[in-house]
Amino acid sequence: MSESRGADDAEPETVEQIMRGTFEALCERGYADLRMRDIADRTDLSKSTLHYHFDSKHDLLVAFLEHLYDDFEADVAEVAGEDPAQRLREVVRTAYRGDDDGREELRVAILEIEGQAPYDDDFRDCLRRFDRLLHDVVRSNVEEGKETGQFRADVDPDAVATFVATALTGAHNRRVSLDVDTSDVETLLLEYLDERLLADAGE
Amino acid sequence: MSESRGADDAEPETVEQIMRGTFEALCERGYADLRMRDIADRTDLSKSTLHYHFDSKHDLLVAFLEHLYDDFEADVAEVAGEDPAQRLREVVRTAYRGDDDGREELRVAILEIEGQAPYDDDFRDCLRRFDRLLHDVVRSNVEEGKETGQFRADVDPDAVATFVATALTGAHNRRVSLDVDTSDVETLLLEYLDERLLADAGE
Repeated sequence: MSESRGADDAEPETVEQIMRGTFEALCERGYADLRMRDIADRTDLSKSTLHYHFDSKHDLLVAFLEHLYDDFEADVAEVAGEDPAQRLREVVRTAYRGDDDGREELRVAILEIEGQAPYDDDFRDCLRRFDRLLHDVVRSNVEEGKETGQFRADVDPDAVATFVATALTGAHNRRVSLDVDTSDVETLLLEYLDERLLADAGE
Repeated sequence: MSESRGADDAEPETVEQIMRGTFEALCERGYADLRMRDIADRTDLSKSTLHYHFDSKHDLLVAFLEHLYDDFEADVAEVAGEDPAQRLREVVRTAYRGDDDGREELRVAILEIEGQAPYDDDFRDCLRRFDRLLHDVVRSNVEEGKETGQFRADVDPDAVATFVATALTGAHNRRVSLDVDTSDVETLLLEYLDERLLADAGE
């Protein structure tokens, strides 16, 4: 995992400004056409200051993905609910939501970065952490639901977690690359979880 | 939809040779680094002959996606089975299979092209046709299964089709971008279909 040297000795406000500029530039230009200059232009910093903190567009984007991961981790940690079933629904909604301010444009750029991940181990490592976090939070809630008896005893927490991570990835991918409405996928996934998990479902 | 001019008046063997060269070059170099020269080098044709048939890398790739679509359509048309449930399983296997000769490398390039689709209407139109074909064949089999009584009467064929298309897209994306084993997704999807569809499931 590449940790950019410059971010460590930068003021938090500077890092925040760079991350905000990267977000805006990515949303407006996408990944392939993004230049360091585009990011600098969206901050109070010069291009050389930006280069002091981050050697390359690659290093900056790795730091940006890590920044997004921290946000996602915080979102997931805040997921509330009275029981595992409610929390699972919230996890799905948190991971699914795509029409918040600017998130849709960001998704477009992320799909481009996913397309580069097979050629870039740092990108791949970052993206795996998102996948792994989503997987783990689903699995732990399913495990808890089994323990409390809310969920069926014969459910495999890992299998459910894999299925949820896969369906959400597919929904994001289809929405972005095909520009189709995938809001029904969230509903379908929640129905699937109810049917598959709840001990008193279908009776 | 951009239909490249040159493919129309080219000999079938020439088109076949170009498509084969495109396949090999894409698998070896990916999409972003692909040059017309790389494709010409994998055929008996000169770069200028290639340019006579296809104006640009973009036009050639659109033609290549259409060529892949024709293959996929033929594969789907060949899907056999005694009843809708069996045919659905075969459809999932056909759409899922990823480790045939060179298919994995091709998937890597396709994910890159998916990442460009938001910026390229021709790519997007092509990719939508794949999605639509998969969706339609799932839906028509679910409809038939409802009519024959093999499937539950309360199942929504469109919803099932959307879910299958989404899960398969997610499996491909995760396998390619994260390099994780997603063979369990095929199993999970088949289980989901059995549980969700079969009239005599869970009794």
